[in-house]
Amino acid sequence: MMPCGTLSTTPADHLSIGGCDVVELAARFGTPLYVVDEAHLRANCAAWRDALAASAPHGGRVMYASKALLTTAIARIVADCGLGLDVASGGELLTARAAGVAGSDLLLHGNFKSRDEMHLALVHGVGRVVADSLPELAQWQALATELDCRVPLLLRVNPNVKPKTHTSISVGQIDSKFGLSISAGAALEAVRQALAADRLDLLGVHCHIGSQVLGWQGFAKAAEELAAFLGTARAATGWTAREVNLGGGRGIRYLPEHQPPSVAEFVAQVVGTLLQRCAELDLPTPDVLLEPGRSIVGETGTTLYTVGPVKVIPEVRTYVSVDGGLSDNPRPEMYGAEYHVFVANRVSAPATTAVTVAGKHCETDTLFRDVLLADPQPGDLLAVQSTGAYNYAMASNYNRLPRPAMVLVNEGQAELIVRRETADDLLRCDLLPDRLAPR
Amino acid sequence: MMPCGTLSTTPADHLSIGGCDVVELAARFGTPLYVVDEAHLRANCAAWRDALAASAPHGGRVMYASKALLTTAIARIVADCGLGLDVASGGELLTARAAGVAGSDLLLHGNFKSRDEMHLALVHGVGRVVADSLPELAQWQALATELDCRVPLLLRVNPNVKPKTHTSISVGQIDSKFGLSISAGAALEAVRQALAADRLDLLGVHCHIGSQVLGWQGFAKAAEELAAFLGTARAATGWTAREVNLGGGRGIRYLPEHQPPSVAEFVAQVVGTLLQRCAELDLPTPDVLLEPGRSIVGETGTTLYTVGPVKVIPEVRTYVSVDGGLSDNPRPEMYGAEYHVFVANRVSAPATTAVTVAGKHCETDTLFRDVLLADPQPGDLLAVQSTGAYNYAMASNYNRLPRPAMVLVNEGQAELIVRRETADDLLRCDLLPDRLAPR
Repeated sequence: MMPCGTLSTTPADHLSIGGCDVVELAARFGTPLYVVDEAHLRANCAAWRDALAASAPHGGRVMYASKALLTTAIARIVADCGLGLDVASGGELLTARAAGVAGSDLLLHGNFKSRDEMHLALVHGVGRVVADSLPELAQWQALATELDCRVPLLLRVNPNVKPKTHTSISVGQIDSKFGLSISAGAALEAVRQALAADRLDLLGVHCHIGSQVLGWQGFAKAAEELAAFLGTARAATGWTAREVNLGGGRGIRYLPEHQPPSVAEFVAQVVGTLLQRCAELDLPTPDVLLEPGRSIVGETGTTLYTVGPVKVIPEVRTYVSVDGGLSDNPRPEMYGAEYHVFVANRVSAPATTAVTVAGKHCETDTLFRDVLLADPQPGDLLAVQSTGAYNYAMASNYNRLPRPAMVLVNEGQAELIVRRETADDLLRCDLLPDRLAPR
Repeated sequence: MMPCGTLSTTPADHLSIGGCDVVELAARFGTPLYVVDEAHLRANCAAWRDALAASAPHGGRVMYASKALLTTAIARIVADCGLGLDVASGGELLTARAAGVAGSDLLLHGNFKSRDEMHLALVHGVGRVVADSLPELAQWQALATELDCRVPLLLRVNPNVKPKTHTSISVGQIDSKFGLSISAGAALEAVRQALAADRLDLLGVHCHIGSQVLGWQGFAKAAEELAAFLGTARAATGWTAREVNLGGGRGIRYLPEHQPPSVAEFVAQVVGTLLQRCAELDLPTPDVLLEPGRSIVGETGTTLYTVGPVKVIPEVRTYVSVDGGLSDNPRPEMYGAEYHVFVANRVSAPATTAVTVAGKHCETDTLFRDVLLADPQPGDLLAVQSTGAYNYAMASNYNRLPRPAMVLVNEGQAELIVRRETADDLLRCDLLPDRLAPR
């Protein structure tokens, strides 16, 4: 077990999360099961909120990047902790609103916002929208004119900083679909156009360089580029930014050897760099927004699987099949992601059996290749740590498997916050034209 | 446009599928939209059925591998064409049954069948189950005793043949979670155990070496290994197989340069090899089962996207954003899969603009890297061919995007067979405990 949140061991040597024995959770709610550690989640929210308050006492807000994990209960908890929410689609926006999060606490992202999504944002009065391209500015102006409202706007600029992470989640280099390039002049042109548009309130700029980055240096570099751009923009237009949004991307521990900077250090370094550069350039001190997603929920989630057939192929490999797979966690297949996994009903037993854990889908579906487990047997329970982000969020119904349930655990209580899908759920969008109906 | 099924061009230079102008389909049903060419689907089913009848006139059945794409309408069409269905989960089984497919026309697969799934299979009287491990045999025996029924059974054996394809979908080498190894003796032991179990009717053997394989040689090699194993099993136990199931895996055309063997050639070569080897070994001629999935539906599907922002980054790249992405087609990110894509409302315009097509998700979400399109502009419609398999089947709600609708087109008529998800669908499994409810 990788020390994390409220994870502990019961006298029976079972994993406990939030004071709940996971063997009992599995019996009560079935497997696969996503378990969210509420105390850890609230502590992470508080850590970000307090770190930002310490580094930017004049003003700022942590906006949870809800793409990492969003259900109404998660939205509610994050909002209760004082955070806003970064949403990137109409579905995310409506989920936050269904949880009672105020529109003004939301920020809308996206490289391609549909007209419906833009309309929703204005109707729900989102606190900020982040424009990603020049044509989008004209669209906001036109829509706001039509609806007779104003648009609080940030510009997503591209600082041309490439962090050290998987290429699929590296988005701040110049070769990216995202943002307005500073070096190519698109960012400055966007400032001019936004200032000229009478319905747009240009609040500031945003950048996001990538995800699951284990250092802070790339982010500090991006902060410097943003400050320099604000200086350039002031010189060219006289405009100064009231807000700077530095995005998210701090990495988490998937394996014990991962060592991300603490939230406090990360925020102090990155926000400190921004504010220092702004001061050096004699720019007014901007409010600072940050958008952690994975960093808030990632380590608070644990997935439980039941072990099925254990197949020993002599001199080759031992395959342990579990009752989930790439439908509940596509990250191993998609990004080559690694996770810390262990037998949850024998936590302290020595993990000395080399196995490969495979999902139940009809393809290779390798979840964890060449890991050491404590002699896993059919019926055992496996726990996989750090599955809070981009697991349920990216889950599918591949092989028509129902998506798992999710329980929130805290102080010995377990509450279902996502119910398990049923066969009816799997069929609810299927339509059978009359001419094809069974005779 | 890659010539395929009923795809053609209208006088307005629009793509037409099944006699339907895709510009009209997009206007009527929205985008992203999955379009299935019914005539092509039925032709593919007939091609497989007829090829098998020609190569195995004594008996056999094509069992559609439903994991590739399954909705009630697809199940109905495939069954109407005389095919059975290979299902790999309770959800797939229940979908086929909801479409009125008889249990006896189904075959149940899986490296880890849950007790519920095994129970469902027996209660619905599936025609065959394919056992994947030794412990599974005992489970079937026990369950059949409990339910007082019999189990028509095939054994999935591993012939240790590695086809040329992506490692994620290569499953017939000895290092696989699937099957009972012939070389390690597990397959023969399974024959002995199945024969000794009074509730199991051991019908034959099954193998599946992998997917999207563009030749037939690997499959013929596997067929030889299966025949040799049947000879070994007969010598050891006296048992002879009534059925041999050679699985699926014939590749399809994703790009014009892909040249899979024709279905007729593939079946003739592979089934011919099996029957010839059986004859040489003086084994009774087995009925032959085949399990094409992608080969039946893959090329019959086309995805339509609407183009959004087109971002020209000078001297770097042009990014074209579309209104879908990895949530409706994870294969580019997951397998590095390539597709043939073109502007569907200017089919014959020269494709001379080098672009990268990106989805709308909040990460890189590259769909088609460095492809040539006919000067795509916002509002244009892109068509992506060969998306029938493993697109909708693997679709997610990442970023809380609703999964797209699917229409069946034929002779100028378009029928919705999967309705587009709504915000209500996205929220239907979320539960908000009272204590978290908005105050």
